[in-house]
Amino acid sequence: MATDLKADFWKRIDNVQAGLLTASGERPVPMAPQADADDNAIWFITAAGTDPEKAAHGGAEAAFYVADPKADIYANVEGRLEISNDSEKLDEVWNAFAAAWFEDGREDEDVRLIKFTPHKAEVWLTESSAAFLYEVAKANLTDDTPDGGEHGQITF
Amino acid sequence: MATDLKADFWKRIDNVQAGLLTASGERPVPMAPQADADDNAIWFITAAGTDPEKAAHGGAEAAFYVADPKADIYANVEGRLEISNDSEKLDEVWNAFAAAWFEDGREDEDVRLIKFTPHKAEVWLTESSAAFLYEVAKANLTDDTPDGGEHGQITF
Repeated sequence: MATDLKADFWKRIDNVQAGLLTASGERPVPMAPQADADDNAIWFITAAGTDPEKAAHGGAEAAFYVADPKADIYANVEGRLEISNDSEKLDEVWNAFAAAWFEDGREDEDVRLIKFTPHKAEVWLTESSAAFLYEVAKANLTDDTPDGGEHGQITF
Repeated sequence: MATDLKADFWKRIDNVQAGLLTASGERPVPMAPQADADDNAIWFITAAGTDPEKAAHGGAEAAFYVADPKADIYANVEGRLEISNDSEKLDEVWNAFAAAWFEDGREDEDVRLIKFTPHKAEVWLTESSAAFLYEVAKANLTDDTPDGGEHGQITF
């Protein structure tokens, strides 16, 4: 069911370390997502002057590509990118990894918070590796095709 | 150095379970790469009638997106996709995972071999997670920014 797929999407993407973000048709670059189901948003922390930051000024259509075998999710997420000045949200999503990239930490003047609001996504949620290996083995024994997990379109 | 980056790219992509392949601007779909540095190619096994298979007929420009925190590689690989009738190569890249997807195995009439010949790529090779956590910790202690691994353009 589409509702379950959306809930599962938010759960899985929470474990994704990084995906490729492309804004306004520019080159895809690796970005670390901060999933936020409550706000229907994926937050990114970046520095002033990066491609995504420049694209986000004034708003931009963007796509976020996820292909993470560890988090068992493959997705093409389409949405809108914008700069956020929400200081409380930045506190909320701030972490040790971001801290390590900015000389002056959270208060570094180059820190930028970007909000990505997904419109729609195509997602593939695979079984965990161990389960998938079992499915493959079973399929080899029984001539079945393996259970490949969930796949579908999500509208946000 | 560009030469080292290319060699490292082939080493890392060999560990990638799946990425997203988009051909002729169509929707990206998850595909399992079989890296082949000797032939300067990435091979995909797919079924007749899938989007990549249809696009590959007559040749198509394609992009392969990799975002794999387990294999420590993020990449945007651009190249050309074509159908291959190389039966020896199919034997070489055939594996248990492919076997599980085709009812009649290697001889299933729906089996298709696709050859992706990269022209250029932008790649980010990250440190392994443990090393990266050390870099982050060190950066937090010393006010340095962490060592983010290798990044650059490759021409094949």
